[in-house]
Amino acid sequence: MPYELYYWPGIQGRGEFVRLALEAAGTDYIDVARLSGRGKGVDAMLRLMDEADREPFAPPFLKLGGLIIAQVANILHYLGPRIGLGPKSEVARLWTHQLQLTVTDFVAEIHDTHHPIASSLYYQEQKDAARARTRHFLTERLPKYLGYFERVIEKNSSGRGYTVGRSLSYVDLSIFQLMAGLRYAFPKSMSRRKRSYPRLSALHDKVAANANVAAYLASERRIAFNEDGVFRGYPELEQ
Amino acid sequence: MPYELYYWPGIQGRGEFVRLALEAAGTDYIDVARLSGRGKGVDAMLRLMDEADREPFAPPFLKLGGLIIAQVANILHYLGPRIGLGPKSEVARLWTHQLQLTVTDFVAEIHDTHHPIASSLYYQEQKDAARARTRHFLTERLPKYLGYFERVIEKNSSGRGYTVGRSLSYVDLSIFQLMAGLRYAFPKSMSRRKRSYPRLSALHDKVAANANVAAYLASERRIAFNEDGVFRGYPELEQ
Repeated sequence: MPYELYYWPGIQGRGEFVRLALEAAGTDYIDVARLSGRGKGVDAMLRLMDEADREPFAPPFLKLGGLIIAQVANILHYLGPRIGLGPKSEVARLWTHQLQLTVTDFVAEIHDTHHPIASSLYYQEQKDAARARTRHFLTERLPKYLGYFERVIEKNSSGRGYTVGRSLSYVDLSIFQLMAGLRYAFPKSMSRRKRSYPRLSALHDKVAANANVAAYLASERRIAFNEDGVFRGYPELEQ
Repeated sequence: MPYELYYWPGIQGRGEFVRLALEAAGTDYIDVARLSGRGKGVDAMLRLMDEADREPFAPPFLKLGGLIIAQVANILHYLGPRIGLGPKSEVARLWTHQLQLTVTDFVAEIHDTHHPIASSLYYQEQKDAARARTRHFLTERLPKYLGYFERVIEKNSSGRGYTVGRSLSYVDLSIFQLMAGLRYAFPKSMSRRKRSYPRLSALHDKVAANANVAAYLASERRIAFNEDGVFRGYPELEQ
């Protein structure tokens, strides 16, 4: 039985962190809301959310038979050991999950650089506040988070350049996505800081060179970065 | 061996969600950063963070021997089944954790009502943006989150009024804290919506009447709400 992934079509968004894990592991899955037909598409996703006994607050969510799991980090916590992208022991799983929850916090802050006042308003309606928030984000938060993850790799005693243990995990895939997205959204700032995060850059390249990931990135299944997602290319925010 | 909780003294903040669980369960713990002396206090907390092989990004974190766990939801995921405040089966644990992660998202949005531009700025320096964000928060986000949790209790087939299963869990304690904090921060809005969330109000009262919780709330261990924490009483934001 394939996993069913439910997420908004048209953006990478938060769903991409799950999609990358499913793709890297070569797992059989259906991207339900991007398909059309009976039981497919966005309507089916919203209906399923409403009707679920254990209702997700928001997409993405993963369905396997009667089991529905929401919240990106929770989905990856469940999937990781099952698809070979995370450790199995409880203590190592807690640490891996802790890192993913820090990724979650970072993603929320990245999103709010262009939407500091309300998700319900257009970016154009909150541009001044977005500029102010982005200025603080780029000088304070970005270096804090990236410096943290750089140290995590450095402190990982395996010395293999991964965040956790000696092999690829879902956290590494999320680091790849963060680096790719931040370079898209803030090319100047990321290029200026290039030398500060050698381990994160190397990890990005290592993930991009993974055969399954490379095939995925070259396929039509990878949605391009665009100005509806988490990472948006608004040059004026970087000034 | 008692658990060691590390969190900023002087505020309830995110640490309070962990403290409430430890208190409700009657667990033996030390609130390290609020104590003074060798190996105690904020300096000891910051040193431990720096030196940890598995470094937390931020407080709160919990220490038990050599194990350090950070991120509130991750701490509660670990603690829940161990201290009798959460289910033990994997599927039920995932659902409980998923709810706690939605609490986490809600808490971040509540925090950003008074700090929409930057945590490093004073509230007074971002008051206009805070007013704009709070207006959207109170009309859009607050009802969305509270309506969601109200439905979660309604859909819980046990009919006992808890969020998960038939007995008190750490999610219920977090709902109590959310209701108490929101009433402190936004008394008018919460009073106006009183009748919309009967199950959340009843759950708040049930938790407050729990003997361990009541003893804790009456003790000096419970820090009062204040204008340095997540929930702040700024009347001008509610206008």
